[in-house]
Parts: sequence; C-alpha cells; structure tokens
Amino acid sequence: MALKSFIEVHPDSHFPIQNLPYGVFKPEPESQPRPGVAIGDYVLDLYEIASAGLFDGPLLKGSDCFHQPTLNKFVAMGRPAWREARATIQKLLSSTEPALRDNANFRGKSLIPVSKVEMLLPTNIGDYTDFFASLHHATNCGIIFRGKENPVPLNWFYLPIAYHGRASSVVISGTGIVRPSGQAYPLGDSPPSFGPSQKLDFELEMAAVVGPGNELGKPVDVNEAADHIFGLVLMNDWSARDIQRWEYVPLGPFLGKSFGTTISPWIVTLEALEPFVCEAPKQDPPPLLYLAEEISRNYDISLQVQIKPAGHDQASVVSNTNFKYLYWTLTQQLAHHTVNGCNLRPGDIFGTGTLSGPEPDSLGCLMEITWNGERPLSLNGATRKFLEDGDEVIFSGFCKGNGYKVGFGTCSGKVLPSIP
Amino acid sequence: MALKSFIEVHPDSHFPIQNLPYGVFKPEPESQPRPGVAIGDYVLDLYEIASAGLFDGPLLKGSDCFHQPTLNKFVAMGRPAWREARATIQKLLSSTEPALRDNANFRGKSLIPVSKVEMLLPTNIGDYTDFFASLHHATNCGIIFRGKENPVPLNWFYLPIAYHGRASSVVISGTGIVRPSGQAYPLGDSPPSFGPSQKLDFELEMAAVVGPGNELGKPVDVNEAADHIFGLVLMNDWSARDIQRWEYVPLGPFLGKSFGTTISPWIVTLEALEPFVCEAPKQDPPPLLYLAEEISRNYDISLQVQIKPAGHDQASVVSNTNFKYLYWTLTQQLAHHTVNGCNLRPGDIFGTGTLSGPEPDSLGCLMEITWNGERPLSLNGATRKFLEDGDEVIFSGFCKGNGYKVGFGTCSGKVLPSIP
Ligand SMILES: [Ca+2]
Ligand SMILES: [Ca+2]
Ligand SMILES: [Mg+2]
Ligand SMILES: [Mg+2]
Ligand code: NI
Repeated sequence: MALKSFIEVHPDSHFPIQNLPYGVFKPEPESQPRPGVAIGDYVLDLYEIASAGLFDGPLLKGSDCFHQPTLNKFVAMGRPAWREARATIQKLLSSTEPALRDNANFRGKSLIPVSKVEMLLPTNIGDYTDFFASLHHATNCGIIFRGKENPVPLNWFYLPIAYHGRASSVVISGTGIVRPSGQAYPLGDSPPSFGPSQKLDFELEMAAVVGPGNELGKPVDVNEAADHIFGLVLMNDWSARDIQRWEYVPLGPFLGKSFGTTISPWIVTLEALEPFVCEAPKQDPPPLLYLAEEISRNYDISLQVQIKPAGHDQASVVSNTNFKYLYWTLTQQLAHHTVNGCNLRPGDIFGTGTLSGPEPDSLGCLMEITWNGERPLSLNGATRKFLEDGDEVIFSGFCKGNGYKVGFGTCSGKVLPSIP
Repeated sequence: MALKSFIEVHPDSHFPIQNLPYGVFKPEPESQPRPGVAIGDYVLDLYEIASAGLFDGPLLKGSDCFHQPTLNKFVAMGRPAWREARATIQKLLSSTEPALRDNANFRGKSLIPVSKVEMLLPTNIGDYTDFFASLHHATNCGIIFRGKENPVPLNWFYLPIAYHGRASSVVISGTGIVRPSGQAYPLGDSPPSFGPSQKLDFELEMAAVVGPGNELGKPVDVNEAADHIFGLVLMNDWSARDIQRWEYVPLGPFLGKSFGTTISPWIVTLEALEPFVCEAPKQDPPPLLYLAEEISRNYDISLQVQIKPAGHDQASVVSNTNFKYLYWTLTQQLAHHTVNGCNLRPGDIFGTGTLSGPEPDSLGCLMEITWNGERPLSLNGATRKFLEDGDEVIFSGFCKGNGYKVGFGTCSGKVLPSIP
C-alpha cells in the first residue's frame, strides 16, 4: 500500500508525504525564522519537532541544525543526515504513527497552515551561479542574435557555460521586482539611451542548492557530484534584454540580470526526485573525461509558465516544458564549476539556464516566445512583446507519480514600475 | 607640528598614525578573530580598546561592532561612526596622550607585534564584483585579441564594464594559489585540451570595500556614492588566460578567474586617502547624466608589482604604476553598479580592473607585459612568459605624504602546483 499521511493531502497537491521539501518560514511576523517541511496545506515546524527530541537518529540527535534561521547547517551535513531526517519526518507524518497524529496539542503547535506563514529564503546564499545548459535555448538565442549559421558556439558543446550571478538580489517568490533602468544600445551615432528597460523578460530555470561544499583547490569528481546537491527549486532569472545586449561584450551579463532573481521557497530533495529520474540527452561530441559520468541523470519534471497581465484576473499559460531536456546535467555542471579548484559552500545555488524545450510552446523566455518582440504574444485579451508593469509571472513544476505529485509549488513575481 | 604617535614608526612604514587601516586578526592561533588597526609594526586590538570603554563617542559607546569576528558591522555604520573611531584611535595613539602610552600593562595587552598575529579576511564578502576600468588595460587587451583597429569596444566609453566574480574564493594575502586545471582552446579540429593552465597570470587591481549598502530597487546617486565606500585594499585577480579565452564567449569569464582572488589585509579608509586625492582622467565622450559627478576624484597611489621566481631569493620589480590612471572613478563604478536597483551589502568588494598605466613599465598583468607570451620577461636570471609553479607575486602600494607614507602593505601569493 502507498505511503500515506494522517494529514489529508489532495491528490493534486504538490506536497504529499512522498515529497517533504524543506524551506524556512516565520510562523508569526515576530517569530525567529526556522526550517520547516511542507505537507499538504501545512508546514511542519522543524524547530518544534527538534525541540521535542523527535529527531532521535544517530546523526541528528542533539544537533541544533533545525534551530538555525537558515538551512545552511543542515544541508552541510550531507546525504546520511538528509536520509535520517527524511525517514524521521516521513514516519512522524505517516497515517500509522500516533506520536503527532494523536497529540492535538503538539499538532497545533507544530503543524501550521501554510497560508498563515511567511516564507523566507531557505539558505544564506554565499554565491549564485547561472549556467546556460539548454541546447534549445542556446540555439534560439544564437539564431536571434547571430543568424542561422552555427547559432551555438563550439565551446558550448564542450563545457557547461556559466557566469557568476549576483547573490544579494536573489529574492523569495512573491517579492515585487522593480523594473531596472539602464543604458541601451545606441541608435546610429547617438549616445546610448538611458531609462527604464523596454525589454524586461523572465527566464524559466531551476536551481540546485549545494549541500556539503568543497575545499578551495579540490575539484569534485563528476561521479560524486550528486552528494554535493541537496535539492532543487524553481528560479526566475529576470532579464533586461536591452541592458544586457549593450553591456555584455566582453565580460558577460551584469546589470541586465542583477536587479533580481526569484526562487521558490521549497527545496525538493534529490531523494524525493529519485523516482522521476530519466536519461539525459545524448551528448555529441562526447564530453571530456572530467565531465564523462557513469550514469547520466535528468529528472522528468513538468514545468509551466503563466503570465497574469496587469489589470487582468486571469493568468494565461505561455509555456509548457520539462526539465528533462537539459543538455548538461546538474552533476556535470557541479563538476565543471569546481574543476579549476573553485570552492562551493553549503547553501550556494546554481541555476540551470533557461529551460526551453524543442517545441514552439515549450520556450522558456519571452525573447524566444515573441522572437525578440517580432511576434507579439496574445494573452486572453492582452498582447505582450515583453513584460509590462503590473504583469505577474508564475512558474510551477511537478513530477507525476502514481496517484500523487511531487511538486515545487510556485515561483512568482510581479513587475513594479521603475522608481523615477 | 605633524601628528605623531608614541609608538616609533619608521618614515618608510606604511602604517603611521596618519593611516590607521582596519583589518581582522587572531592574536593567538586559538583566539577569536577580532578587528584591529595597524600602527607601525604593531596591531592595535580594537576588541581590547572597546572592552576598556575607550570608544566613548556618541556613536560607538556601547556598540559591539569591535566585538565581531569581521568588520561588517562597523563598516555598515557609515562615515560618522568611521570619523568618530578614527578620532578616538588617533588620539589614543598620539604622543601627547597618556592613557595607553603610560599604561604598560594595557599596552602589552592591546598592542601586538604584527609579526605575531594571523591576518584574516577583513569582512564577510557577500558579493565580489570586478570592473574593467583602466583604459590602458582595455586598449592593450583589445590590441592583443582583436588588433589595432578599434581595440576598445564603444560600450566601454559609456559604461564601467564589470562582471560578477566569485566571493567564496577571495583569500587573504599569503594564501597559496593552486594552479587551476581546465579546458583550453582547441587546435585545429581537435577537441579542446584539458590540463593545468599554461597561461597563469596575475592582475594588479585595487578593490573598494562597501560601507553602508543600499536597498534592492534603490540606486545610489553618483554624488553620494563616496559615503558607501569604506576604503581600499590591494587585489590580485589571478587569471588563467587559456581557460578564460575558451570559455568567455558569450557569458564572460568564469573558471579562468574563480580559482582564487587575493586581497591585502588592511583596509585603508577614504579618510586616510583624502590628502592624496587627484583629478581623474578627462572622460570623452562625456558620461551619461547618472555617471556625471560634481567632483571627479582619483587617488595618487604608487603601485608596484614584484615577482620572486621559484627557487630564487630575489624578487624583481616588473611594474610600477599608479591608481590615478583609472578612467572610471570608484564612485562612478558604485553608481553604475546600483543604477538598475542592484543592492550592495556592507563588506562587499568591487575591484577596479587591472591598473595598467600608459608606459611600457607600468602594465598590470603578464599578458600585457609579455604581450601574451611573445616577449618573455627577464627576471634577474629567470625568464617568464606566464607564472610558473613556486613563483611568488607581491603587490605593494602607498601614497607619499610629507615625511610619511600612507600605505597598503603587501598583497602576495605563491603559485602551488596543480593537484594531479
Ligand atoms: Ca539565465
Ligand atoms: Ca580583473
Ligand atoms: Mg537574475
Ligand atoms: Mg580572481
Ligand atoms: Ni557572489
């Protein structure tokens, strides 16, 4: 019989007992931030569970990792501790376990409706990196900017291209995004124009949260890289295409990206995603030795983008895609990131890059969907080339199990007008 | 009469009473890290000074900013607190003030020979940014890689180009730098090669340490930007030219930089540098309005690079240059960094980019000095195109006052062989 919780969880919920994603929340506006786990429409308060001594396994007994305001300490502990925590929580929430089920007082204290809490960034992000690992996205960008001949530069096929992002402006789902101002490409002989971005875009991505780090100077082997990944979140790498286009040669994107990056609050662990492993695309040319992994794994995660245009009640679906199209796997990304000795720290994140699929309705950003504004998008009464003030962008994602979903919830943000 | 300390300070010392730079140190291997100020060959232990109640001004009295393991809290307090601290410390160390001078017991506790302490990173660096703001460096790089026709792209003259760097691998002066491995440009039709970098280089830079930050979405006006800068350090942005060249299109440098960045331990405050302000180069075309400052200020800081080749006792000077050649000022860099709403946090750093001067002997990296390896450098018996294992690179810098120097000490690192 399938694992079941004593808490009623709708079959469409993203958070059944098979998932158990981790986040950080405040039960009351004045509370200290603390780790929690999502179950149905509730948050299980791990501060309370730990305080009650219910983490009684050898690794977590007596640990203060759930008495921290972030998950950094817990994710640093590594897979054995994650397994122990998952087993403890899964047992505690199961329909056959009386400890929490039959203790109304403790249940009231440790299970809080998610609608009542404030979600915060799950980790203190030391560094944020963004990859560019979808071949469909790289191809489309190449055609738009450089034409159909060799749209993807040769280096792309040999290394998972990435850039360092800005950690300070990573925000939690629901945070408003102020439209950035900046310089845009000059027309003719004029100086560049300056003003609010006219080409504000989203990028549908997922991001990996780093577990145990590595020492500076010590690369991580690609076949051990999975042990350094705690789990995944949804990520919107908001992008100002006009700012980016003028600034990015020769040192890459800077102000076109650093005004905000949104992540979803619940980190879905690799353990919870294990039943949804699938093969990654075949890589041709074959990867160099340090990127050649014994088993190449992607995950079958359905991803959806909706836009709720300013002044409208209804959101429209603008993309349906899947994580499984990712060309360079997460473990290849991590191995590449560290091959020069660069150190990752627990709680760091790295984004996959825009997750475009092969179909016209599976593209991961407006630049691709509207072909850089050439083909405006119809949104149930509104038309868009790029985002307008008041537009809300909502990502969601889930894996389909047998009678349940393992999901990521949503990653959303509304565009706020630029400050004059 | 000139300000003088009761501590004897040699006229060549970088750390007279006119300087008073801030760092973080451990007096004993087991001590807690704590803030200190350099004076001659000593470190003044601010933990002890604060514990003794000697910070008795209105802003610092009762503050625990000097009981922290980093300077983040102090730098966040802003210029009024910095002025108050400087006045207190300058008075305490002056030859006419008995409090410390005549108290042998307290002097022994709070003044520690710098040779006995371990220096640490002065702040917790949330984000590290690197600019590209020397015209001489940009021109030389352009000629080397793209030829003499228009070596500097047009956008360079309108915006201080920058990229996000890796914060985790910023290390303190003296830390060994492991030669990075990575992919290099393919020859002909072969796949790219992989192995230890064959073109390991240094980049002579200075970095600004951010004081009070700004809120996400709220740009800092260029004329107020100086209030957000606590001070400066020397910085070596170690660079693997072969790795960088293959990876950097289209998203900029990544693994060619992220294996290590060295900073000097003492933050020299803008207050201490004030007597050495000089005009910045004239900017043509004129900067856009948000970068046009009422007063454009550089600093007259002599900078020197020495290399001590592996197996040699003697270091050779390979460059003499000056901070004053910097094209985009620090305040323009900061205003540009935030114009899109990007938030800076106290303790963040941003590097100036390689500080090359106009003369052949004032270049800031080996790529320029040896013209990408074409003109090997003679080092008193050794020859170098790029750095070899065991080579030590030593930066120093100071301002010349009347009978004293305001200096930065050194920023050094030795190249360690790559790990097989
Ligand atoms: Ca992206
Ligand atoms: Ca640099
Ligand atoms: Mg972003
Ligand atoms: Mg560096
Ligand atoms: Ni960073």
